[in-house]
Amino acid sequence: MYIPTYDDMLAAHERIMPHIRRTPVRTSDYLSDLTGARLFFKCENFQEPGAFKVRGAANAVFGLSDEQANKGVATHSSGNHASCLSYAAMLRGIPCNVVMPRTAPQAKKDTVRRYGGVITECEPSTTSREATFAEVQAATGGDFVHPYNDPRVIAGQGTCSREFMEQTGGLDMVVAPIGGGGMISGTCLTLSTLAPETKVVAAEPEQADDAYRSFKAGYIIADDAPKTIADGLLVPLKDLTWHFVSNHVSEIYTASEQEIIDAMKLIWKHLRIVAEPSSAVPLATVLKNPDAFRNKRVGIIITGGNVDLDKLPWMQG
Amino acid sequence: MYIPTYDDMLAAHERIMPHIRRTPVRTSDYLSDLTGARLFFKCENFQEPGAFKVRGAANAVFGLSDEQANKGVATHSSGNHASCLSYAAMLRGIPCNVVMPRTAPQAKKDTVRRYGGVITECEPSTTSREATFAEVQAATGGDFVHPYNDPRVIAGQGTCSREFMEQTGGLDMVVAPIGGGGMISGTCLTLSTLAPETKVVAAEPEQADDAYRSFKAGYIIADDAPKTIADGLLVPLKDLTWHFVSNHVSEIYTASEQEIIDAMKLIWKHLRIVAEPSSAVPLATVLKNPDAFRNKRVGIIITGGNVDLDKLPWMQG
Repeated sequence: MYIPTYDDMLAAHERIMPHIRRTPVRTSDYLSDLTGARLFFKCENFQEPGAFKVRGAANAVFGLSDEQANKGVATHSSGNHASCLSYAAMLRGIPCNVVMPRTAPQAKKDTVRRYGGVITECEPSTTSREATFAEVQAATGGDFVHPYNDPRVIAGQGTCSREFMEQTGGLDMVVAPIGGGGMISGTCLTLSTLAPETKVVAAEPEQADDAYRSFKAGYIIADDAPKTIADGLLVPLKDLTWHFVSNHVSEIYTASEQEIIDAMKLIWKHLRIVAEPSSAVPLATVLKNPDAFRNKRVGIIITGGNVDLDKLPWMQG
Repeated sequence: MYIPTYDDMLAAHERIMPHIRRTPVRTSDYLSDLTGARLFFKCENFQEPGAFKVRGAANAVFGLSDEQANKGVATHSSGNHASCLSYAAMLRGIPCNVVMPRTAPQAKKDTVRRYGGVITECEPSTTSREATFAEVQAATGGDFVHPYNDPRVIAGQGTCSREFMEQTGGLDMVVAPIGGGGMISGTCLTLSTLAPETKVVAAEPEQADDAYRSFKAGYIIADDAPKTIADGLLVPLKDLTWHFVSNHVSEIYTASEQEIIDAMKLIWKHLRIVAEPSSAVPLATVLKNPDAFRNKRVGIIITGGNVDLDKLPWMQG
């Protein structure tokens, strides 16, 4: 297991800077007053494909040798990683193969295809996904870019908090959602060297709290099929992300589905940005644990903004 | 009738800069490809009270003598001007009185009150509004800040396109929605001196196309009670805004209700910002008249982001 270093993050930033956006930081006096903290929101939803995952994906894609690049990249994902990897591959002009369950939302498939990604469908089971992915990779020779358990991906995600610290002039805490742990690991990687006094806090849905339970237990606990509206946070930690979480995360807080929806509406209403449910989990936990954040300079990473506008969570029921 | 000058705009910018945001400019490769133009979006929805109108309001409020400031400001409005004037008055710590129809949405009243504005309700008719406003002004001595037909307000709105030109390095055209014409007039004021080769284009709902018909007829035509989802664009031109519209606007385009809704969804989906229906009218007209904009550098002003998230236009029906 290769653990990416601070220098890997610096190299990643240099490599991906021409291909990604230095996303802006938004503030809202209203939300700061509401929480009693001084809040800063890093708008990764403003990346062209709408999620921070373009950072790690671009680092992997643009770090390939020309020989490997000709064979392209491959992954299995039904979320933002699939579209961001397709987007990065399109920028370099190389093939991208994505294995995706046939049950994945049509909108997700459309986005991958818009960026030139080639989808191979599998059944919605781990067995089928792994078998199908092995076939695709054998046929294409594409380089496997894991959605998060990959040192290139983690180094890429770490570039976000480097910008965040520059843009804000420093933060007491950074809060990001945790699913597989790619963004949290990148944040730990960067801040443990750049600003070791800045605490890294992870935020997780109660209904998919495997990282929280892993953190308390001291070893990885993976859930089988958690259900939450925060659909970017369903996957479990893996060895590489567990390394960063167990060594550098200060605390993991959780929030209920309703708390996530309420926080999402606050973000839309007062920051006037479109953020996906996963991105609302940090604000939900800040509102729920005011004593932990009061009077602190708190950075929140808005991880993505890909939602189905016709099926917003508060439209249901 | 005093017509504000370019120097008034420069003075306004100096005056309001500590109190407003230099809002960011967003782009989307997808939307540029879709329209065939190179689009730039100035995010005035990111002002703290969510609309460009804080510029004109702050210019009026912070330009008052201390003596007048003690008596405060007053206006009649049920929209963004009311909340932005209240917000600016709160920043200076002076009273703000707002006359508003008792039928105005509760959310609008709540926002005005959150910023310390004092609401006096009237019946939803011009007679009642004018009588009530006269009483309020007589009682308080507050300085009347008209929502748009006021040189201080127009000079304030003009600061937006000054930033826009600096941030983009120049534009071939700027498109903004037109209701009473405050933003369009400010844009004309600034660009006719700063960048006379840049065309100013106004965008209007078909169902409230009084500015379009005025422009074609050569004199002000005012509608009685137009109905459109673009609720910021219901009011007619007045003498001061007509001056700028008739002298400096290149063209006025209109869009249907459905075209406005479609453009609004495109903005939310691809720019990932919350923009109100009025702000979607420019993109709707660009999509409708591709030949007029093709291969041009087109600036679009996203005028505001105050919407009821529980009553989005595409939820209806």
